[in-house]
Amino acid sequence: MIRVMINGRTTDCLTSADRGLLYGDGLFETIAVKDGVVCHWQQHLQRLQAGCARLGIEPVDEALLAEESRQLVEGVGRAVLKIIITRGSGGRGYRVPGQAAPTRILQLHDWPDFPVACAEHGVAVRVCHTRLGHNPALAGIKHLNRLEQVLARQEWDDADIMEGLLLDSDGNLVEGTMSNLFLVRDGVLQTPDLHRCGVAGIMRTRVLEMADQLSISADICQLAIEDLHAAGEIFICNSLIGIWPVIAVDARDYAKGAITSRLQGLLASCADADTDIDTDIDTGTGRRWQT
Amino acid sequence: MIRVMINGRTTDCLTSADRGLLYGDGLFETIAVKDGVVCHWQQHLQRLQAGCARLGIEPVDEALLAEESRQLVEGVGRAVLKIIITRGSGGRGYRVPGQAAPTRILQLHDWPDFPVACAEHGVAVRVCHTRLGHNPALAGIKHLNRLEQVLARQEWDDADIMEGLLLDSDGNLVEGTMSNLFLVRDGVLQTPDLHRCGVAGIMRTRVLEMADQLSISADICQLAIEDLHAAGEIFICNSLIGIWPVIAVDARDYAKGAITSRLQGLLASCADADTDIDTDIDTGTGRRWQT
Repeated sequence: MIRVMINGRTTDCLTSADRGLLYGDGLFETIAVKDGVVCHWQQHLQRLQAGCARLGIEPVDEALLAEESRQLVEGVGRAVLKIIITRGSGGRGYRVPGQAAPTRILQLHDWPDFPVACAEHGVAVRVCHTRLGHNPALAGIKHLNRLEQVLARQEWDDADIMEGLLLDSDGNLVEGTMSNLFLVRDGVLQTPDLHRCGVAGIMRTRVLEMADQLSISADICQLAIEDLHAAGEIFICNSLIGIWPVIAVDARDYAKGAITSRLQGLLASCADADTDIDTDIDTGTGRRWQT
Repeated sequence: MIRVMINGRTTDCLTSADRGLLYGDGLFETIAVKDGVVCHWQQHLQRLQAGCARLGIEPVDEALLAEESRQLVEGVGRAVLKIIITRGSGGRGYRVPGQAAPTRILQLHDWPDFPVACAEHGVAVRVCHTRLGHNPALAGIKHLNRLEQVLARQEWDDADIMEGLLLDSDGNLVEGTMSNLFLVRDGVLQTPDLHRCGVAGIMRTRVLEMADQLSISADICQLAIEDLHAAGEIFICNSLIGIWPVIAVDARDYAKGAITSRLQGLLASCADADTDIDTDIDTGTGRRWQT
């Protein structure tokens, strides 16, 4: 961890009474910082606010969070900005206190050095035994209850396996432990619907937008393991890795496909073109905020 | 909070890199301290160790935890000892680091002053809309992923409703937000099986043991909302409240029953009789450890 800020102070001292620790009562965002640009800031902020609304946590002060994020990434080229918002401290047991002041934790991490081959040639993944339970009230948001992902990630230690795919308790495909999943079948992009579990990733939305730009049909639908077997192309995505073609699922091989390549190409070109300066936030430092 | 100890130090400063915060990657125990006695210490310790084993967290050093707990409750009559064990810090993303050193957080809280009427005359409860998702790998243990309970507890603000009952995603009865649930039907005690979700409470086990002592038949089984309606007696239990008869579930009234009273009576008498001194732990301070 490069540096941390908690509620605006340069400290890494959190009270053990914080409900983020006690119950996982909070949310997080993992944001790519590239060439000083906090990528997809508005999208991350929107998801964070949507998550707060779903959990009944007080809305985040956007200007304050932007200002603190700007301070934290100051002078940094490539890094990961992790924002954690918890409900704060207090309340007896699960009951939420009337006047909870949310806790803002901003962490700056080193950029993970993913092998270039992952994006270029693709990765091998596995199907995990751990299943995701259904909870429509928590589905889609990036909350702090992540034991299912931790257990799933513990299933393998083979460095050649870059991701594990997760099914729900009914056997439907949902996502990867740290990524969203896309299949291509007969030229149509497919991604699991996330009404009962899963995280609706910022890059997942970006991929669906890009598909629209490229006039590629896309379905958000219920998908089973058989759909994975029948897919012509598979890829996974998140805000840090971008798009990674999947070239093997357990013992089954796949080829990197044309639609995956087109989406990767558009994403790479957008990374520059889409960058926008939020003049409300950028206070003359020349730092750009990608929206 | 009266006082806190983290990893043996008198501090309430936890790093935001702790996986307990990041992912809810840990476990907790809520333990009654009465007249200086740490009640059901061995049972709480066993569940904690079982939870660590299930999550792949290094086993707790029992002598160390006992010694730290003893220090924390020193000079305290009636209080609540909360023990939180997390996987510690480290690892990139969900992946568990090879050499994670678990974090021990011990908090001492004021004893909650439950109205005497709750145990004597019974309480009103409601059935929550929030459902528990299935996750057999997490079922039974008292882990830190508690957003379902937080959401369920947010459903009501009526001070006369003391607990909310939770169904799973298939509509089976599971437990209360903070308690386990028992029904009595035709003289037989029934409690939901917890193979797919729920917390196997220390007091739940104690109730089943007491039923055996009293020659009351008990079934751990799948129960639906109709079973609740058909029950002759209902009660809830946990380590702090003991046994509370349920006299209303939403608009439906129930009477406090004979089996509930017998179990309450036995529990009250055991509270003294079962107390045992762990001489390995008690280092001559006269403090007793209930096993």
